[in-house]
Amino acid sequence: MLDDRSKILTDSLKRLLRRGATTHLAKIVNKTHATDLAVTFRSLSRTNQRKLLNLIHDIEKKGTLLMELDEDILVDLFEGMDVDEIVKIFDALPKDDVAGLLSSLPEEKSDAVLKKMKGEGAEEIEDLLKYEDETAGRIMVTDFIALKQDMTAKEAIEQIQKEHHEAEMPFYLYVVDEYGKLVGVSSLRQLVLVPPETPLKEFMTTDVVSVETSVDQEEVAKLVAQYDILAVPVVDEGHRLVGIVTVDDVIDVFRREATEDILKMAGAGEEFVETKSVMKSTRIRLPWLFASCVGGIIASLIIGYYTGLLNQMVYLVAFMPVIAGMGGNVGTQSSTIVVRGLATGRINIRDIFKVVLKELSTGVILGIIYGLIVGLVAEFRYSTGGLALSVGLALMCSMSVAALMGALLPMVFARVRIDPAVATGPFVTTATDIISVFFYFQIAATLLKI
Amino acid sequence: MLDDRSKILTDSLKRLLRRGATTHLAKIVNKTHATDLAVTFRSLSRTNQRKLLNLIHDIEKKGTLLMELDEDILVDLFEGMDVDEIVKIFDALPKDDVAGLLSSLPEEKSDAVLKKMKGEGAEEIEDLLKYEDETAGRIMVTDFIALKQDMTAKEAIEQIQKEHHEAEMPFYLYVVDEYGKLVGVSSLRQLVLVPPETPLKEFMTTDVVSVETSVDQEEVAKLVAQYDILAVPVVDEGHRLVGIVTVDDVIDVFRREATEDILKMAGAGEEFVETKSVMKSTRIRLPWLFASCVGGIIASLIIGYYTGLLNQMVYLVAFMPVIAGMGGNVGTQSSTIVVRGLATGRINIRDIFKVVLKELSTGVILGIIYGLIVGLVAEFRYSTGGLALSVGLALMCSMSVAALMGALLPMVFARVRIDPAVATGPFVTTATDIISVFFYFQIAATLLKI
Repeated sequence: MLDDRSKILTDSLKRLLRRGATTHLAKIVNKTHATDLAVTFRSLSRTNQRKLLNLIHDIEKKGTLLMELDEDILVDLFEGMDVDEIVKIFDALPKDDVAGLLSSLPEEKSDAVLKKMKGEGAEEIEDLLKYEDETAGRIMVTDFIALKQDMTAKEAIEQIQKEHHEAEMPFYLYVVDEYGKLVGVSSLRQLVLVPPETPLKEFMTTDVVSVETSVDQEEVAKLVAQYDILAVPVVDEGHRLVGIVTVDDVIDVFRREATEDILKMAGAGEEFVETKSVMKSTRIRLPWLFASCVGGIIASLIIGYYTGLLNQMVYLVAFMPVIAGMGGNVGTQSSTIVVRGLATGRINIRDIFKVVLKELSTGVILGIIYGLIVGLVAEFRYSTGGLALSVGLALMCSMSVAALMGALLPMVFARVRIDPAVATGPFVTTATDIISVFFYFQIAATLLKI
Repeated sequence: MLDDRSKILTDSLKRLLRRGATTHLAKIVNKTHATDLAVTFRSLSRTNQRKLLNLIHDIEKKGTLLMELDEDILVDLFEGMDVDEIVKIFDALPKDDVAGLLSSLPEEKSDAVLKKMKGEGAEEIEDLLKYEDETAGRIMVTDFIALKQDMTAKEAIEQIQKEHHEAEMPFYLYVVDEYGKLVGVSSLRQLVLVPPETPLKEFMTTDVVSVETSVDQEEVAKLVAQYDILAVPVVDEGHRLVGIVTVDDVIDVFRREATEDILKMAGAGEEFVETKSVMKSTRIRLPWLFASCVGGIIASLIIGYYTGLLNQMVYLVAFMPVIAGMGGNVGTQSSTIVVRGLATGRINIRDIFKVVLKELSTGVILGIIYGLIVGLVAEFRYSTGGLALSVGLALMCSMSVAALMGALLPMVFARVRIDPAVATGPFVTTATDIISVFFYFQIAATLLKI
């Protein structure tokens, strides 16, 4: 549905751009929601993107559109704008988003922009930039509603009507003590339901989930998801309320982290590269393949060692790919299950022994089944019992060890606080390649008595 | 942080369970948030899970806890409960969640439960169950606030105070016409800010994003994420408002879909299996490996065809793994990027030519670089120019074709509306294995004139 709508929009914009029908374009662009424009933008050239951007009158819409674009498109578009224009756009955006955008600008430009921005906004953004990337402090917004605990319900309603027209999540009314410490939470609905003179502290909920500014954004996202809340308050070391992280940012965190994990598992970098140029994409993927290249060369040395065996029984070669391939695939299954389990909290590092044992058992069973199948094929094709036995045993060993490694590697990585997602993909399959070849030829050499 | 807390909780619950300290356990269990208990539950035995469950007094909390557990744990726990107890729990849960739980019960039991549930609730659930799985209709809730467009702000406030204490998203006030058709949306804040006698239709926002009941849940989730809204109204074919999908369900959809995609890409089924038994896990993973098994056997037949070549130059074998492995890894990179790009909307099926060309170019460049490296290693090790050239060329071809297939397969699958995630993993690596072997030996046979 989304797709059909964006197709129609993209097609008509492209047609009008070719014709240079500026008035018509301006009309469409200003009528369309920024989000829909963003989808279309991905399939336009930079020049056309700039053209359309210049046609948008509403500065806030321009900002929202930019926010939706990928970082590399953004950087290019900002390059063509002068500092004044960027400042105007930034002034219309939520401060947490500006902090994110600023870090994608080249340093001189971001400094110039910060200097030109109006006093208060710039200060707020500089405050946000003080926090580490990917922490609660960095993604929080500071437009929240905080009420003093001694206020009455009536006073609270008055304050909200007077002051907080801009708050991002007007549903949660946070309650603080005289030092600004978070002590409770209430809601508009509660305010309306209690007698007007009741002080907040008598009916607020005191059991509030909160996070400190330094907490990792993924932890924050998990918290919001687990408790089904729309925002989580962020406090400093003194438990003073300094901001909130809202559910829309949480969704972004989840989607970004899932993409990161998926790409890492495939050894394709961390950031999404399809929108990048071929050279950039090549540069990102090159190093990940190096592990697999080194592993392949090691395998070649091991094989070289068995040249004598192979000279006598060259048909052994035929089953190398199936043994290595099946091992690699089981290893990938195991490592993927473990990495995703760790990311979603279904697997806990503490259960390392249980998890690894289970994967190993699965690997052994699968190894026996496929060892029998492929062994039979070998017997049927070459009719030398020794080959069939070697192939079957090697396949079983390869699949068992692959499952063991596929489970163990990410668990160990997680334990020593290295991202387990990088432990899968290239590493597991490459290690499996080496081990498979070794098992196969060693088993064959032993069984066939060479 | 979450982790530390759950560790402490798990450890003390386990200790108390061993000691049979029921009073103490009951105290902790009833004090702890259902979400925290759910995390702990994963590392307990079924018997202990049942024990703890029986200690929970608050029926709503029991329901919330069950909701957070994996389906296979749930099914086991429900098996040990009688219909009356299940009905009591279901009565305390949101209707959309009950619809989901019901479909995980065996049919006789779910029928018995539905029959026993109180009239209205059961009807509502049966209504939800009429919609296809994984659609907006299935995951929507029907507790929303709908106001008639002719009402004044004052009347609207009165109605909300009187009737809607249970609504799931009290922040969006949907406005309908006399036929129940969705015509606009407003908010509590707007109601408070306008003069009390203003009719809703004069200040409501008429530009409302909505979805029909049959829309796929992933589409719904994308919409909520793109527009940064907290809920999306669901309408029937006559555009009558029938429910809303809330942001907490959207987060669940995103996480589940990401897990599904990741597992499918690795050929490890669709559902998370680590919590399942070894036999169940084996059964799920077995068929996915079959493709790779067949592929491996095909490769063995191809190799058999080149026995003559290998008999003369057995050292060719040494470079088989590196050629197949590098090809497989590049293919996995490409397919992963494309599958994730399609899932997140960064790649569009319409751009198939552009995307495939880009991946192919990247594959060719990477192939040239690694072809040179591995070719040099071959020359250094065996000093026969022909081998080095064969290895280098084969590696280049293998990596180029793998990148091409890795990009093309998921795009084609997506176009014919098969889930592109199944096109990666086993299929791409297996196809690459076969092609690599063929290229390598054919190039060697040609170059070395055998």
